[in-house]
Amino acid sequence: MTDAATLIADLTTRARTAARVLATLPTDAKARALRAAADALRAAEPAILAANATDMASATEAGLSGAMLDRLRLDAGRVAAMADGVAAVAGLADPVGAIIDETTRPNGLVLRRVRVPIGVIGIIYESRPNVTADAAALAVMAGNAVILRGGSEAIESNRAIHAAMVSGLVACGVPADAAQLVPTTDRAAVGAMLTADGSNGAGAIDLIVPRGGKGLVARVQNEARVPVLAHLDGINHVYVDGSADPAMAAAIVIDAKLRRTGVCGSMETLLIDRAFPDPMSLIDRLVTAGCEVRVGPGLSDTLPRAVDADWDTEYLDAIASVALVDGVDGAIDHIARHGSHHTDAIVATDEAAATRFLAEVDSAIVLWNASTQFADGGEFGLGAEIGIATGRLHARGPVALEGLTTYKWVGYGTGQVRG
Amino acid sequence: MTDAATLIADLTTRARTAARVLATLPTDAKARALRAAADALRAAEPAILAANATDMASATEAGLSGAMLDRLRLDAGRVAAMADGVAAVAGLADPVGAIIDETTRPNGLVLRRVRVPIGVIGIIYESRPNVTADAAALAVMAGNAVILRGGSEAIESNRAIHAAMVSGLVACGVPADAAQLVPTTDRAAVGAMLTADGSNGAGAIDLIVPRGGKGLVARVQNEARVPVLAHLDGINHVYVDGSADPAMAAAIVIDAKLRRTGVCGSMETLLIDRAFPDPMSLIDRLVTAGCEVRVGPGLSDTLPRAVDADWDTEYLDAIASVALVDGVDGAIDHIARHGSHHTDAIVATDEAAATRFLAEVDSAIVLWNASTQFADGGEFGLGAEIGIATGRLHARGPVALEGLTTYKWVGYGTGQVRG
Repeated sequence: MTDAATLIADLTTRARTAARVLATLPTDAKARALRAAADALRAAEPAILAANATDMASATEAGLSGAMLDRLRLDAGRVAAMADGVAAVAGLADPVGAIIDETTRPNGLVLRRVRVPIGVIGIIYESRPNVTADAAALAVMAGNAVILRGGSEAIESNRAIHAAMVSGLVACGVPADAAQLVPTTDRAAVGAMLTADGSNGAGAIDLIVPRGGKGLVARVQNEARVPVLAHLDGINHVYVDGSADPAMAAAIVIDAKLRRTGVCGSMETLLIDRAFPDPMSLIDRLVTAGCEVRVGPGLSDTLPRAVDADWDTEYLDAIASVALVDGVDGAIDHIARHGSHHTDAIVATDEAAATRFLAEVDSAIVLWNASTQFADGGEFGLGAEIGIATGRLHARGPVALEGLTTYKWVGYGTGQVRG
Repeated sequence: MTDAATLIADLTTRARTAARVLATLPTDAKARALRAAADALRAAEPAILAANATDMASATEAGLSGAMLDRLRLDAGRVAAMADGVAAVAGLADPVGAIIDETTRPNGLVLRRVRVPIGVIGIIYESRPNVTADAAALAVMAGNAVILRGGSEAIESNRAIHAAMVSGLVACGVPADAAQLVPTTDRAAVGAMLTADGSNGAGAIDLIVPRGGKGLVARVQNEARVPVLAHLDGINHVYVDGSADPAMAAAIVIDAKLRRTGVCGSMETLLIDRAFPDPMSLIDRLVTAGCEVRVGPGLSDTLPRAVDADWDTEYLDAIASVALVDGVDGAIDHIARHGSHHTDAIVATDEAAATRFLAEVDSAIVLWNASTQFADGGEFGLGAEIGIATGRLHARGPVALEGLTTYKWVGYGTGQVRG
């Protein structure tokens, strides 16, 4: 094995041992340990900021962009927010041990499906050091061991955050290997994590969650031999039906596109029913608010024309493509061809149109008369999220504690044999 | 693309179109179509038996083993059982449309998680032609399009069964592409199914379910680029605690090992607590019943000794390995090292020991005072199963209709913006 493979094999094997301990920790033990980790983060603020200053100096020297430097930068407020986030996770309802359903068979055998942790979760992320704390807290609260692989530009910050977290966990009896940080910036370590399916005799990683830009997610999805929860694109649509209230439509369109343009829940394409009385009013509102608009056939001759690629583009910027469609059927067809199964919304007063849209649009999140910017675990009441998934298995949409668990069947007999 | 890749791309693209129709079919439309498919199977009995005779002749000429010939063989009774199975699936509760949970956010947004079909399911199986009908019925009842790839030795039987099924479905308005049979025996078609992740621009297969021997499952797990639900091994344990009732222990051990030895739920290793009064009584019962027993240290000197490989072997035969262990801790440790996360049972009157075993043994199914041979969707009250899964994500243990669905988030607003 390469050095990276040997390193990851050691980490995964330790993680599996820790996972066995974590799986049976009572809720209050996990919560107490996470509150101690939050306290340790607050106490370690000077060390964390010093480490971050080292990372910032290297990153500045390396010529990283302003946006990347901003993601990397920590200050007292950001460290406090990180600690608050960890403490908040400690207050969430623990899904582990919940009985999903129970049945008594005619032979008297009682069968329950009981929520249990997944086991070992790998998190692969980029420059934001707060993911070290956020992701570790969520994974541990759901009873999983976690292996964290952050961006090389944040290695010193991540080490300091990780050391503080672990000191808090260990002080409350949680194994140190519950949250391990990959100690190298060797990119081969990522490859070793993505193929850690146990076939080399080491512990397996049960699930990988990538947190970062499209390049990272695409690499993870292409190379992974273990399951991945992620979304690659958020090509989200708002469809304004002919029956929509124009004022509500305008408010939702503006919010969906412009509240924050860089988030995965932002609208990229506006679909307007040909029966909607005044499509240009919606477009004018976007333009007036500073959005570049690229229009399809039948709309303004003075605005830029959308080309084919626009319908498949996630701008993550103040740009929107706009198409006229033939009612809800046209909207459903457009989304089936161009959507990314993330979040799509309809604005309508016609309940039949809305019901069809909600049933037939095949996305993780479908909304009626609400902005796509609600695509967020916090907004969904989940407390925090490890990410948003657009795959079809296990968990869809915002993934929080429950998505980091699975179940087992537990049967209670009195000597039943099948005979 | 190769011929096989082009063929599968055509099938998957058709399947996705059919899946959009299936996803919104009401329960009674699916049930009616499956009952019509069952009737069509009964009516096609002569054609199915004629096709099967062709397969049997080729298989006999090719020198297939008696066991393989038996799996391939159809007769009037087996065709009737196949039709009854399809009709039974039509009577199962439809999971699609069920509301998993619902929450109203402080801003008034109502969020539901609603069960929806997965989409397109690929089934890869070997010689049993009844899988063509069973698997198609389950997939379609859960609202999925299915692509069936059976064993080359059963191709004529599968074609006849598939033709009958589709005639019944189509007569009730279900698209013909809801259940497609791969029309070639080219092995490259399997590879094309396993990599049908949509990256070639064709429709994706969302989930592959292999049905067959370990060689097939291993190939599917190794080559698949799309999610797989399966189990490779069923290295199942019965642990007899010192507190066990001896008569119950003997009955469960005999049933777990010998009721049927070739099923994935059969016991392969018996673990006996050193505190159990008379371990040899259990071993003698097995030997008397015709089971070969291979023992670990501390047990009979006259019986064959188990070697290291025995603890990791799925015999699927009248052979059992037997080890003495130090209480429930010893049993949990042995299973952690050698188990395959399938089905493990404890026989005990000591509730504390049983509770620990059920919590700490990391298997899809854990049982207290019941035989491992209950590992079966029918026995679990699921009506029928597509298979048993030992992975950790999406579905574990017997997978039936619910396991062939996923969910979407459906939000009902009144104009909410996040702004």
